[in-house]
Amino acid sequence: MSAVPTTTATELLAAIKDVGTDPARGGYSRHGFDTAELELREWFTAEAGKRGLDVEVDRNGNIWAWWGAPGPDALVTGSHLDSVPGGGAFDGPLGVVSSLAAVDLLRAKGFKPSRPLALMVFAEEEGGRFGVPCLGSRLLTGATTAEAALKLKDSAGDTFADAVKAAGLDPDRIGKDEEALSRIGRFVELHVEQGRGLIDMDAPIGVATSILAHGRWRFRFTGEGNHAGATPMGARRDPMLPASQLILSARWAASSVDGARATVGRLVPTPGGTNVIASSVDVWLDARAPNDGRTRSVVERITAASKQAARDEGCELTVTEESYGDTVHFDAALREEVVAALGKAPALPTGAGHDAGILAAHVPTAMLFVRNPTGVSHAPEEHAEPDDCEAGVEALAKVLEKLAAE
Amino acid sequence: MSAVPTTTATELLAAIKDVGTDPARGGYSRHGFDTAELELREWFTAEAGKRGLDVEVDRNGNIWAWWGAPGPDALVTGSHLDSVPGGGAFDGPLGVVSSLAAVDLLRAKGFKPSRPLALMVFAEEEGGRFGVPCLGSRLLTGATTAEAALKLKDSAGDTFADAVKAAGLDPDRIGKDEEALSRIGRFVELHVEQGRGLIDMDAPIGVATSILAHGRWRFRFTGEGNHAGATPMGARRDPMLPASQLILSARWAASSVDGARATVGRLVPTPGGTNVIASSVDVWLDARAPNDGRTRSVVERITAASKQAARDEGCELTVTEESYGDTVHFDAALREEVVAALGKAPALPTGAGHDAGILAAHVPTAMLFVRNPTGVSHAPEEHAEPDDCEAGVEALAKVLEKLAAE
Repeated sequence: MSAVPTTTATELLAAIKDVGTDPARGGYSRHGFDTAELELREWFTAEAGKRGLDVEVDRNGNIWAWWGAPGPDALVTGSHLDSVPGGGAFDGPLGVVSSLAAVDLLRAKGFKPSRPLALMVFAEEEGGRFGVPCLGSRLLTGATTAEAALKLKDSAGDTFADAVKAAGLDPDRIGKDEEALSRIGRFVELHVEQGRGLIDMDAPIGVATSILAHGRWRFRFTGEGNHAGATPMGARRDPMLPASQLILSARWAASSVDGARATVGRLVPTPGGTNVIASSVDVWLDARAPNDGRTRSVVERITAASKQAARDEGCELTVTEESYGDTVHFDAALREEVVAALGKAPALPTGAGHDAGILAAHVPTAMLFVRNPTGVSHAPEEHAEPDDCEAGVEALAKVLEKLAAE
Repeated sequence: MSAVPTTTATELLAAIKDVGTDPARGGYSRHGFDTAELELREWFTAEAGKRGLDVEVDRNGNIWAWWGAPGPDALVTGSHLDSVPGGGAFDGPLGVVSSLAAVDLLRAKGFKPSRPLALMVFAEEEGGRFGVPCLGSRLLTGATTAEAALKLKDSAGDTFADAVKAAGLDPDRIGKDEEALSRIGRFVELHVEQGRGLIDMDAPIGVATSILAHGRWRFRFTGEGNHAGATPMGARRDPMLPASQLILSARWAASSVDGARATVGRLVPTPGGTNVIASSVDVWLDARAPNDGRTRSVVERITAASKQAARDEGCELTVTEESYGDTVHFDAALREEVVAALGKAPALPTGAGHDAGILAAHVPTAMLFVRNPTGVSHAPEEHAEPDDCEAGVEALAKVLEKLAAE
C-alpha cells in the first residue's frame, strides 16, 4: 500500500458534488446502476485503488474494497452511493467517504489491522429505481430472492435483470451469497442522522439502538377512465377519490399509533391527462412503527379506510406488499464496544432503514450517526457541518482501530 | 382530380390503427408534433393528395386540404389527429377520416362545390403535450398569444418553440393568422360523442347546441420535503394532504352546482419517492359548467378549500389559470340549415371542448356528433359502430353538399 495523503470527508464529497445533480427536483438523483451511480462506483473504485485496497464486486453488485486479504470474520464498514429522487448529498455517500477517510487516518498513524477489513458500497439502498429498499443487502442475505428481484421494473419499464446485465453482472448469479456473507464478522455503518435527535442532545456523533419496523405497500385503485367534461359527476367511478382518502387516512392512522409514521410520497394516475378521469391510480404507502404489531395495525387501518372509500366510489382496490422488515435491535454487546471506543456517545433509535438493519439479522452490527443541523433528510436541505463530518471520520477510525485489533 | 374509389371511415381508421398505440396505458397516445402525430399528419397529407386536394400547412401547424382554390368564404370541415394520453381511436380521427370519406361520396355523385371547400387538421387539440387544449385553433384565432404558447413546456422539458421548429415550422411566425382565419366562411366539425346523449335518444347522429365553459388550473402546494421514516407525524408539512383535500373538494363543489364538472386526472408529487415526504405537489384541475358564473363559482369553492387545507398543513399554495374559455353557443341559423340538410337530427349540448368551439367566436360554426355506444371517451373503451360511422359520413356529405352549393 503506497503512501497517500489523508483526506477529509468534506474533500471527498466535494469531488462528487457534480455527479447526478437533479435540476428539476434539486439535490441529487442517483439510482441503482444508473449513469450517475455507475460513475460514483467507478470513482469509489479509483479512490480505493489509490489507497491500495483490492476491489471486487460481488454477485449482487455490492462493492468490497479489502485492506488485507478477504475474510472470513472480517470487520466491514460501508454504506451506499445511491439517493432518493432529489435527495441530499450525505445520505449514503457520507458513510462511504468516511470509510475512505478513516482508512487514511489509520494508515497515517501506522495502524495495521489484525483481521481482514473491508469497505463496502451497497447497491440500490434507497429503492429509488426498483422500489425495494436495501436491495443489495437483501439479495446478499437472501431477504429478497433473485426471482423476485430480477423482475422488478423501473419507471422506464426496464427490469432489474436488464439493469444488472447492463452493469456487467450476470442475472443468473444474482441472489443469496452465503460465501460473501460469511466473510463479514462484524459490520459498522456510519450515516448522516435523518432527524433531530443529535441536535436535541447537542452531540455531533451518536450510536444507533434500533430501526423502526418498515414496509412499503402499493395500493392500486381501479375505476373507469372517461372524459373530464362529458361525464356527469354522478356517473363517475374516479379512483383519485379513494386515493385521496387513503392519504388522509394515513395521517390519522399513524398519528393515533405511538411512534408510527405513514407517508404517501409517490402517486401515479393512469393515464394522467388533465382532461381525463383516471382509469386507475397507484399509491405507494410507506409505513413504519416501533414494532411489527403497531406497523401492521397502522397499515390495516389505512387499508380498511381505503377499501371503504373504493367501495363508495365503485372502484376496485388491490394491495401489494412490496417490502417489509421487522424492527431491528442492533447488537447490544457490539454497541457497548463502540461506545467504549468513542469514550462517550449518546444512543438513539432511528426511523430510517439501512443496509446495517438487513445485515443485523445475520451478524453483529452497529451504526454511527453524524449530526444533521437541519434535521431534514431525503431532500436537498439535508446537511452535516464539516467539523461534524470530521468528528464522524475520527469516530469511525477509532471504532475500526479497536475492532480490527481484536 | 383523378378518380379514386370511395372509402369508408372504418377503412380509413383501420389504416392508422397501429400508429401511436400506448402499451402501458392502452389505447393511443398521440400528442401534438410527436412521432405518432407527425406520422398521422403525413398519412392525411397523402390521403388528401390521392383525392387531388391541395395541401398546405398554416403558420401554426394546422393542415388545410383544399377542394378547389383557397377561400375566402370557404366552407371548412375537419377535426384533429392527436389524442389524450391513453385515449380512444375516434376522438379527433373520426372527424378527419369522415371528411375524406365525405369528399369521396360527393365526388362519386359528381358534385362540384360552388365555393371553396377545405378539410382541416388542427394541431394539439387535446393539450396532451403542452397543457393548453385547442392550441392550433387558439393560435390561429389569437385566443392564445404566440408569446404564451412558445414557452409552454412538455413533460420532457421541451418547449412548444422546440416542437414546432422540429416539425419544420418557424417559431417567429406562430400566432394570430387573420389571413388564414378570413378564408373560413363557415365551419362544421364531426366528432364522436363523448357521453350518452345519443344512446338515450336512440339516434346515430346529433347536432351540437353548446359547449360548457371550461378552464384548467394548476395548483402548486409547497411544503417541506423530508424523510418518510425519520420525521414524526406532528413535525410534517406534507403537501400531499392539501392536494388530497383539493380532490375531495372538487367532487362536492362540482356536485353542488347544476351541470358543473370538476376533475383531477393529473397530479405530480416532487420528488416523487416512496420513502420521501413530498416537497411540493402539482395538481391540475379541469373545471367546466354551463356558464362562466357557475364555472368560476366551482373553482372559487375549490380554491378556498385548498387554501384552508394548505394553511392547516403549513403549506404554501399558488394557483395558475392555464386556460379558460367561456360557454360556446353554436350559431342557431347554421344549426337549422344543418338539421334541414339531414332531414332530422336531435340537438344536444356537450361538456367536451373542440376547435369548433374556438372558431365559433369568429365564424358560424356547427358540430355533428356520432353515437358512442359505451358513452366513454378519453379512454380505450371509446367506440363508434361502423354503421354509425357511415351514417356520420353520409350526414357530413349532405351538409357539405348543401352548404357548398349555396
